[in-house]
Amino acid sequence: MNSATLWWDNETEGLRYIDQTLLPGRYTVVECRTVKRLATAIQRLEIRGAPALGVAGAYGIALATRACRKTDLTGFFAEVLKDAEVLRTTRPTAINLGWGIDRVITKIAPLEDIASVRRVALEEAETIAREDTASCHAIGTHGAALFPDTCTILTHCNAGALACSSWGTALGVIRSAVTSGKQVKVIACETRPLLQGARLTAWELARDGIDVTVITDSTAAHLMRRGMIDAVIVGADRITCDAVFNKIGTYMHAVCARHHNIPFYAAAPLSTFDTRHNEKEVTIEERGREEITMMGDRVVVPDAAQVKNYAFDATPMDMVTAIITDHGVIRPPVSTGSILSLKNTQ
Amino acid sequence: MNSATLWWDNETEGLRYIDQTLLPGRYTVVECRTVKRLATAIQRLEIRGAPALGVAGAYGIALATRACRKTDLTGFFAEVLKDAEVLRTTRPTAINLGWGIDRVITKIAPLEDIASVRRVALEEAETIAREDTASCHAIGTHGAALFPDTCTILTHCNAGALACSSWGTALGVIRSAVTSGKQVKVIACETRPLLQGARLTAWELARDGIDVTVITDSTAAHLMRRGMIDAVIVGADRITCDAVFNKIGTYMHAVCARHHNIPFYAAAPLSTFDTRHNEKEVTIEERGREEITMMGDRVVVPDAAQVKNYAFDATPMDMVTAIITDHGVIRPPVSTGSILSLKNTQ
Repeated sequence: MNSATLWWDNETEGLRYIDQTLLPGRYTVVECRTVKRLATAIQRLEIRGAPALGVAGAYGIALATRACRKTDLTGFFAEVLKDAEVLRTTRPTAINLGWGIDRVITKIAPLEDIASVRRVALEEAETIAREDTASCHAIGTHGAALFPDTCTILTHCNAGALACSSWGTALGVIRSAVTSGKQVKVIACETRPLLQGARLTAWELARDGIDVTVITDSTAAHLMRRGMIDAVIVGADRITCDAVFNKIGTYMHAVCARHHNIPFYAAAPLSTFDTRHNEKEVTIEERGREEITMMGDRVVVPDAAQVKNYAFDATPMDMVTAIITDHGVIRPPVSTGSILSLKNTQ
Repeated sequence: MNSATLWWDNETEGLRYIDQTLLPGRYTVVECRTVKRLATAIQRLEIRGAPALGVAGAYGIALATRACRKTDLTGFFAEVLKDAEVLRTTRPTAINLGWGIDRVITKIAPLEDIASVRRVALEEAETIAREDTASCHAIGTHGAALFPDTCTILTHCNAGALACSSWGTALGVIRSAVTSGKQVKVIACETRPLLQGARLTAWELARDGIDVTVITDSTAAHLMRRGMIDAVIVGADRITCDAVFNKIGTYMHAVCARHHNIPFYAAAPLSTFDTRHNEKEVTIEERGREEITMMGDRVVVPDAAQVKNYAFDATPMDMVTAIITDHGVIRPPVSTGSILSLKNTQ
């Protein structure tokens, strides 16, 4: 079993990834050679998780440079940029996807022959994947220091190895804490509607021998009141100076954590920060009703009822105890200056 | 379609009820003639909802008096009491079940011939069912007055007609508000793990032409923050002077409602009050892991992960804006005296 979530296969000149919609029942590696297939994979959440989307976006440009048959440089770039937009619009809330795409495009834009473009696009995507793993380990080290030696940590959705190239952000912190000898138990919220907590977080932590208990999302407050939770840690799909965007339900945990005086942490690389927008300017993706109305083959919501299916919510920065990044820990208030200085000084 | 949830059938001398596990896909009426079958129905949640359990418990004793073949009064009562204990222990948290059972037993205990016992047991069960409907309408009238003329109300689980003989407690308040001409929209939380909100609340409100939108449980706080919720109303399985016991997730809604200055109401008949115990003395039912690990036929939690499946939580009384009862509205703090005086003065 490959410990990475997605990786380049030199033999087939294509991307390979674990299809996350099939876990925990089936571990299946998909071979993907076109941007169209990758876009479908991202929309269907076969690949999901903010940092993994950044890596996928980067590899997507590498794929685009390989698939393009144009021989003139202008026509070639026009087609690659068209593919980039197809990829970019698959998920509107996660910032990393566009970040990964743009990093490769910036790198290949000055080049003047197609062979170099193809080579550099792949090199840059590979660099992003390596950096992602390194940044998860850095997040882990910074975050693990915040936890007591024995603790029970609640997490939501999957900000784990499966959401990154490997190791994970929120789960990276948990892995680093365990590696450093701390006794950590994890409460994984199942995370409706698509159950990434039950399916993915429980799967990858159990695989690593970390003590994990799955609960329904709404059980979290009950456990907090009973004193059974020492901290909450989640990932992030986008962080503005005024809010953390993450899987729907994150804000509820932040409110309940605050009510019970429990620290609430978000863990994400600095690439997740969006200093150009504020909360109100960010679109929250709404997904189809069938994610909520169907339970396997069974209809569980009558047709006559409406459904609202927000994929994310925004947690205002004043509800966040700290953000654990690959460059260190940021405590609110957060400003563009505080992010830049963290980036530059370490 | 019978508008009641469970009712006595004179022809077969048995209880009939809608199997709530099959909604909204199938509307199936089950004929039940033994206490054993009724106990299974309660455990499997074919019949659920606090007031409905009270009525079911009462009819259960009527069934027991019919099934018993003993001819001596002492032996007869011994067998009926044994059946009563079988029923009582099916669900530990809801108080109404034991209340309905005990009301019939108290009524039949002084009787001296078996024919009278059988007749009176059924009469008392029928009275309890009629009173339950009347009390839902009284709750509805008291509660509807608390709502603004145009509002969006969030509810959790199903405290509707399906949880009672008819009309409902929390949904009874919504029905009464709509009947009185108010413009009410309902946000129904799906209510994991068994989806009573998605399956039952959405079904019965849509059937009645009331505007209903289903969300995942963890979306509630997001809607509250966006100003889309004017009040929260839930039912209750047991109310002590210090806490409201209701479906898991209720406490989370109470915490989030408080954070957003949204009123939080519980609606329940006075028979739901337990003045003899406090919160700490009440057992919170834990149910099997398969309710969380299985999604239809599909395993969604790996075997190596643990699961905690609390069926209920306790919301401390100071988080409750008011309790809407069949005898009027109670605002915390709640004491045995305040409950008794409400009972006696109205």
